[in-house]
Amino acid sequence: MPTRSLRLGSLRLGGGAPVSVQTMTNTDTYDVANTLAQIRSVVKAGAEIVRLAVPDNRAAEALRELVQEAPVPLIADIHFDWRLAVKALASGVAGLRINPGNIGGPTRARKVAEAAGAANAVIRVGVNSGSLGKKNLSHFLSHPNPQILVESALAQVKILEETGFRAIKVSLKSSQVMETVAAARRWAALSDIPQHIGITEAGNAASGAVKSAVGLGILLTEGVGDTIRVSLTAPPEEEVRVAWEILRAAGLRARGVEVISCPTCGRTKGPLIQMATEIKKRLADVTQPLKVAVMGCIVNGPGEARNADAGIALGQGHGSFFAGGRLVASRVPYENLLSLLEEEVHKMEQTHAN
Amino acid sequence: MPTRSLRLGSLRLGGGAPVSVQTMTNTDTYDVANTLAQIRSVVKAGAEIVRLAVPDNRAAEALRELVQEAPVPLIADIHFDWRLAVKALASGVAGLRINPGNIGGPTRARKVAEAAGAANAVIRVGVNSGSLGKKNLSHFLSHPNPQILVESALAQVKILEETGFRAIKVSLKSSQVMETVAAARRWAALSDIPQHIGITEAGNAASGAVKSAVGLGILLTEGVGDTIRVSLTAPPEEEVRVAWEILRAAGLRARGVEVISCPTCGRTKGPLIQMATEIKKRLADVTQPLKVAVMGCIVNGPGEARNADAGIALGQGHGSFFAGGRLVASRVPYENLLSLLEEEVHKMEQTHAN
Repeated sequence: MPTRSLRLGSLRLGGGAPVSVQTMTNTDTYDVANTLAQIRSVVKAGAEIVRLAVPDNRAAEALRELVQEAPVPLIADIHFDWRLAVKALASGVAGLRINPGNIGGPTRARKVAEAAGAANAVIRVGVNSGSLGKKNLSHFLSHPNPQILVESALAQVKILEETGFRAIKVSLKSSQVMETVAAARRWAALSDIPQHIGITEAGNAASGAVKSAVGLGILLTEGVGDTIRVSLTAPPEEEVRVAWEILRAAGLRARGVEVISCPTCGRTKGPLIQMATEIKKRLADVTQPLKVAVMGCIVNGPGEARNADAGIALGQGHGSFFAGGRLVASRVPYENLLSLLEEEVHKMEQTHAN
Repeated sequence: MPTRSLRLGSLRLGGGAPVSVQTMTNTDTYDVANTLAQIRSVVKAGAEIVRLAVPDNRAAEALRELVQEAPVPLIADIHFDWRLAVKALASGVAGLRINPGNIGGPTRARKVAEAAGAANAVIRVGVNSGSLGKKNLSHFLSHPNPQILVESALAQVKILEETGFRAIKVSLKSSQVMETVAAARRWAALSDIPQHIGITEAGNAASGAVKSAVGLGILLTEGVGDTIRVSLTAPPEEEVRVAWEILRAAGLRARGVEVISCPTCGRTKGPLIQMATEIKKRLADVTQPLKVAVMGCIVNGPGEARNADAGIALGQGHGSFFAGGRLVASRVPYENLLSLLEEEVHKMEQTHAN
């Protein structure tokens, strides 16, 4: 069923809106200058929503200035203390992430919902397998399972909805990928409440990216999930980059240059890995979705290079340059190939911008 | 429908056998010493099948010694010249990867099938969007589509099967993730011939891993795919590592230590990224599937650390150590936490080995 449509600050979420990309700062939230610098940096990388940890009063007091300066909606992440949630709402955050199970009982959770309603803010009910309430844990034999994640979220949503509050999204996260997938599918079948999806504690950048891509790829291509966060033990800019790559791979949204390049094999001519890495770096700031091929041989090279917006295929000591599906130049020395490619992409960007 | 069961050297493939992990060397195949060193290195990383490019006679002549010394089945990757395929079979390779469309016409493709039948070898019909025959390309309006990949493979399989040869697997690869997914699904619905699945020219290590994880994650969890290769513009050991992470995330097979760690946030205490990276490095040679948690705070930390085989959760300046679901030590100085974790995992490995 289609999810209900929410407003998160200036952004539309759920109800068929594009799946949005979010991340979380890892600065001290009370340190406004550093936090703002990181917010700007992740927004440049493509973040559309930014969440901040608000563990204490100092952090809550910094929110007003952060909200004023930030170019995207901010979400305050709050545990244990409902008064921090109310304070964050007064500072103008677009949303809260709370775990009603640890915010101090139903009465306090309801107070937070009333304050959020008055502030036109969204509340995410975030259930994590690692932080389920003790009451839920007693249901386990050994490990949390999808049904327990779903039941925990339903119980917590009920508390908020009893106040008439409807601007709710949920997340049901497990570090087990297929457990997260099962929980999110189950939720989508039961409720119209939009989902924030992600694999919690997904591990370091390389392996966390794979776990997130498997889980979110499955869900997104089934139409499940309204906003995503890729959780990595890595800088938040990297989380945003991976999130966009997942959206692109799933065929949902594209942003920036996609470099298609060969796996290296015994047929590869030239320093392919270095050239692919180099061109990716040179074109990192391009936001227009373009496809660039860097191919190492004559078997698959010309075909892929022609299918891309621009591309090169390496021969021995020189290579061919393709643009717009046509061979533009052949026998180009290696050292000139990347510049040709870079100029072409910037030209395409210009054309598109005008 | 279940796929037909094949023998690839000592390995079973298709018909319900575990999904196997393969990669491709990027050394010069004629250079036996270097190629063998790379084969041993990728096998240590978890490769169960290794493919080699055989572009010329020199490479084909090296195969006999490589086959004798390699600890896993080898596959010769051959384009354009059917005599190289016959020579590779005579050297004892367990399989060939050919593209019947460029091997020199149906008569020669049939000769290769007959030689493979006599040698008990498997042939993979490998269709790539980048290397479709010109005849197929004329079908396109602009880009190759899944139906064309499937039709091309069906036509090529037919040529081989006309000789009575049945030990066939296919691959239908596009650099567009969802196009590859669509082609593989379509194939699985039409044929019992096992599939080698992968996203071709998947890009550099970080972004290629994401594309492969999205595509292979979807297919594997639907039961499509009998053997996988992750193609990256990166060392083949990295391809193998990512392949295993995809299999683990999809809930199919596990190998080695999985490090569960937090995304960093404002709540994180201590040098979490460094500690997670360090423990992953120290435990890289463990092959037993074990789960290790490295958590940065007291919200999700203790829960995840208890669910893991062993784990740590950081407080300010010190942390807690968990093993087998129990808190073993608290207020442990940072500098001792990783050694405790490392010793515990090696102890678990020992116990399991005995």
